[in-house]
Amino acid sequence: MKIGILGAGRVGGTLGRLWTSQDHQVMFGVRDPHGPKVRALLAETGPAARAASLAEAVAFGDIVLLAVSWAAVRDVIEQAGPWTGKILIDATNRLAPPSPDDAPSAAEDVARWAKQARVVKAFNATGSVNMTAAPYGAQKVDIFLCGDDAQAKAVVADLIASSGFDPVDCGPLANASLVESLAKLWMQLAFAMGNGPNIAFKLLHR
Amino acid sequence: MKIGILGAGRVGGTLGRLWTSQDHQVMFGVRDPHGPKVRALLAETGPAARAASLAEAVAFGDIVLLAVSWAAVRDVIEQAGPWTGKILIDATNRLAPPSPDDAPSAAEDVARWAKQARVVKAFNATGSVNMTAAPYGAQKVDIFLCGDDAQAKAVVADLIASSGFDPVDCGPLANASLVESLAKLWMQLAFAMGNGPNIAFKLLHR
Repeated sequence: MKIGILGAGRVGGTLGRLWTSQDHQVMFGVRDPHGPKVRALLAETGPAARAASLAEAVAFGDIVLLAVSWAAVRDVIEQAGPWTGKILIDATNRLAPPSPDDAPSAAEDVARWAKQARVVKAFNATGSVNMTAAPYGAQKVDIFLCGDDAQAKAVVADLIASSGFDPVDCGPLANASLVESLAKLWMQLAFAMGNGPNIAFKLLHR
Repeated sequence: MKIGILGAGRVGGTLGRLWTSQDHQVMFGVRDPHGPKVRALLAETGPAARAASLAEAVAFGDIVLLAVSWAAVRDVIEQAGPWTGKILIDATNRLAPPSPDDAPSAAEDVARWAKQARVVKAFNATGSVNMTAAPYGAQKVDIFLCGDDAQAKAVVADLIASSGFDPVDCGPLANASLVESLAKLWMQLAFAMGNGPNIAFKLLHR
């Protein structure tokens, strides 16, 4: 699969390494494709990954992962388009205090800005240390996802499963605020409460 | 331990049965202590449980579990006092659309209304079917809790652990909105998404 990744930070870099190791083709979309951070990342991923502009990465990808900090999200989305028909995985978290213009969730703001993209919220609710797909004993890490486009959500769920995670379908994009709250709870437990980042939420079934 | 339980519905009834089976003494505080629902419940719990007025149950309990529907919470709290020094476990969820007078979480409203109670949010983030403490294979059900009174939180965490659950400390009461979002996500996954109520969030560690 051809995957565009906007951002080459912890989340984008970790998933880029994982996906290139699994025979996907990755293009990192970044402001400076020749910068030292991106060159170091490409040295790790090998020829299955390249770096280019934001718009080139969106044009390249069957799927595009949005993994930039919230402060940059709106600019990045607007510079990276056109988004028409693209599957956009929104991995962002909005940690700033709410403003009156905010949608109820970051994902719904992303959907508003990335006009005609097919937005799926995923890969936001856990730390990058869990995005190597290394399991917890016999249990895979859960990746919680939601979205309104059933076909796009199925493609993302397949990517999640084939990457070594368990997908957990949380329903429509209107539930994104709940998936984003899970991210905030993970951060509180990992950092404020001192558990460290080697923790993960698992949905048990019986 | 002497435990007051306000409400004799699914959550209050299930935990009342569990705690009486574990040699705690329970007093259900209800509007009608002689009604048929409460009599049926007492027939199950045997002499370790009694039923009385809301205020008698608060006076009785070292710990008081608040397990009534959100619509009744404020009236019940105001009728049930005085709360001074009592450990109040808030198991409620506020599912109605937000109103401008709401605190950021149900628990913070409960703390505002139950003057000088020591409020601990807990037992709200999963279904009553998980409150029998029956495990999922080798894994106990997690009970997520938060609160500002460290000693009260330690007492509640001990009760959770001795009851057969794993307590997960989520920090101060300001994090209650995150624990309440977990409840909403559980409900979406159980009912809207068709997983059924035999699901539970587990915090994995490695």
